[in-house]
Amino acid sequence: MSTDILLIPGPIVISKRVQDALGTPSVAHTCPEFVATFSDALKNTRQLFKAGASAQPVVLAGSGTLGWDITASNLICPDEKALVLSTGFFSDSFADCLTAYGAKVNKLDAPLGDVVPLEEVRSALKKDAYKLITITHVDTSTAVLSDVKSICEVVKEVSPETLIVVDAVCSAGCEALEFDAWGIDYALTASQKAVGAPPGLSISMLSQRATHVALQKAEQRMFFASLKRWIPIMQNYENRQASYFATPAVQLVNALKESTGEILEYGLDKRIEKHRKVSEWFKSQLTEAMGLELVSVNDAVSAHGLTAVYVKDPPAAISTLKSKGIVIAGGIHKDIKGEYIRVGHMGESVCNDSLQHLQKCIEALKQVAL
Amino acid sequence: MSTDILLIPGPIVISKRVQDALGTPSVAHTCPEFVATFSDALKNTRQLFKAGASAQPVVLAGSGTLGWDITASNLICPDEKALVLSTGFFSDSFADCLTAYGAKVNKLDAPLGDVVPLEEVRSALKKDAYKLITITHVDTSTAVLSDVKSICEVVKEVSPETLIVVDAVCSAGCEALEFDAWGIDYALTASQKAVGAPPGLSISMLSQRATHVALQKAEQRMFFASLKRWIPIMQNYENRQASYFATPAVQLVNALKESTGEILEYGLDKRIEKHRKVSEWFKSQLTEAMGLELVSVNDAVSAHGLTAVYVKDPPAAISTLKSKGIVIAGGIHKDIKGEYIRVGHMGESVCNDSLQHLQKCIEALKQVAL
Repeated sequence: MSTDILLIPGPIVISKRVQDALGTPSVAHTCPEFVATFSDALKNTRQLFKAGASAQPVVLAGSGTLGWDITASNLICPDEKALVLSTGFFSDSFADCLTAYGAKVNKLDAPLGDVVPLEEVRSALKKDAYKLITITHVDTSTAVLSDVKSICEVVKEVSPETLIVVDAVCSAGCEALEFDAWGIDYALTASQKAVGAPPGLSISMLSQRATHVALQKAEQRMFFASLKRWIPIMQNYENRQASYFATPAVQLVNALKESTGEILEYGLDKRIEKHRKVSEWFKSQLTEAMGLELVSVNDAVSAHGLTAVYVKDPPAAISTLKSKGIVIAGGIHKDIKGEYIRVGHMGESVCNDSLQHLQKCIEALKQVAL
Repeated sequence: MSTDILLIPGPIVISKRVQDALGTPSVAHTCPEFVATFSDALKNTRQLFKAGASAQPVVLAGSGTLGWDITASNLICPDEKALVLSTGFFSDSFADCLTAYGAKVNKLDAPLGDVVPLEEVRSALKKDAYKLITITHVDTSTAVLSDVKSICEVVKEVSPETLIVVDAVCSAGCEALEFDAWGIDYALTASQKAVGAPPGLSISMLSQRATHVALQKAEQRMFFASLKRWIPIMQNYENRQASYFATPAVQLVNALKESTGEILEYGLDKRIEKHRKVSEWFKSQLTEAMGLELVSVNDAVSAHGLTAVYVKDPPAAISTLKSKGIVIAGGIHKDIKGEYIRVGHMGESVCNDSLQHLQKCIEALKQVAL
């Protein structure tokens, strides 16, 4: 396999410890050893989201996208209204998913590289009754960071009955995220971003209120994504009791236990601070030292797990870096697709100083005519 | 991790080669190396099902169960009729999934341990117009093998417009299965059975006709399971072109390429024959040498990838074998749950003679008062 330095915004570099946990023999999904591993992975996930005992973690075989289906099929009914705050491609796709399931979606589009103004959110919530609101914490297409905490405050003030759904795919593990304290109802992420595991797991967290909604919901047009079926299974596994609805991805769960374990041993707050510092250094190198312009319009809306930056010739930048053994990604926002590059800086590449991944990336970028 | 001999009906023992392919560093899901791997995995999957160029393989992050959702959401509309041939717990669950999505299900229940008589299938198909019929090739709860070929012939004769859906979760890789020759429209399996990879992938195959149905279907109440979204992605990957809808489970796809590669290098027909021989030997040891009774009522309806056998005290048998380092499974059919055990014999445990897994299992079982 490639020995390139992987700096795309997910999948990210996994640590040796995670890789070792992945490359293990199969065991029964019901054996005590695996049940204990799954229990630990669920408990770690709870801590990753800063969620307490009343919250419900759910870890399923699937891509991060499955979290959108879980939202759309468990937390809202056809013809109920959803308010989607869009900061890019992934927010738009979440809206598409909700629409496919029959929800009536009102999408507030932020200006490119920016967030939806809080006053716009407030006025939309005042005008209509929404079953849920979705916030893409970090839109991986633009590297725009949303102020989830402030949005939650507005929702609690204006429309407390609206469920708050946070797409934390590119934020859990690298951005401040306080599930309980901010009053989030459902947060979803994927294993291959700042969580530091390989792709293949949908990871999410339900508040007590969202759990109640999911358990009450008639089971329509869903089965594999049915929380009514999964919640008891997750509760049993967390309580170290084997349980069956569909076979869990055993080795990926092994990897998740280790990757979340690493995060918690490092210290979640310390880790988030480290991502912030490395991101600020990385961005300042691009803007101040190299004179480039970020897609995100100011520091307050700039994500810390990836950087989206305008360059003259993205394909040339990507292939030149590739020739130097560094893999970065192109743009995917429809309006500026061919105008920028994206560099991921999450997990091992950020927190394992000895790797010097971001320093090497900056050195390489400085040698390219950007 | 455990060094027990894993003989449950999935997850099964994976080979060193598959384990090594699994425990690999992350790479970009769009890099040429991985795109080539995914292409090979899809081409191998096509061969595994004996499907030609007009068939469409689909490999998604998910459990085997996701294949039921794919069927229910892409191949049939609410209020259309489905005929389910039930040979146990998993056939029943497939019916539950179809019902959850709004299909009108007529379930023909086979007598315990047996299959639905062909004449019953014929008469049901004559009486009503069905959008699809589901056949559970091997029901993992009873180890009953259905005669897919003969059922396909009846469907083609009586109701050629009915789509034929085969749950091949416990059959692909260990039972004769001829997707094209038998005229199957959709076959689904999971990675952790006779396919020989770790759990976490939903693997399936569409006929040209089923592909057409899926592409025509309005996208309602589904997103992650949408074949309309996935088919172009799978076609691109197979043609060695990166493409994105949701991030594939990179390391699991690496493992799938190797596990299907092993099967094809061994020879698919030879491998199926090997499973038949080992299964017959294993079953004859239990019945003739030890006087036990199988759940499946005769040879013609006995699966070759697992054995379900009545024993006096299943928990004692399971724990005694566990103390000897062999992991087998209990019963899960609602009517006889506490009366039988299940032993899986698929993949590496069957085809790698040097392991002697089944011989060791029989020796251990002979030391238990059954």
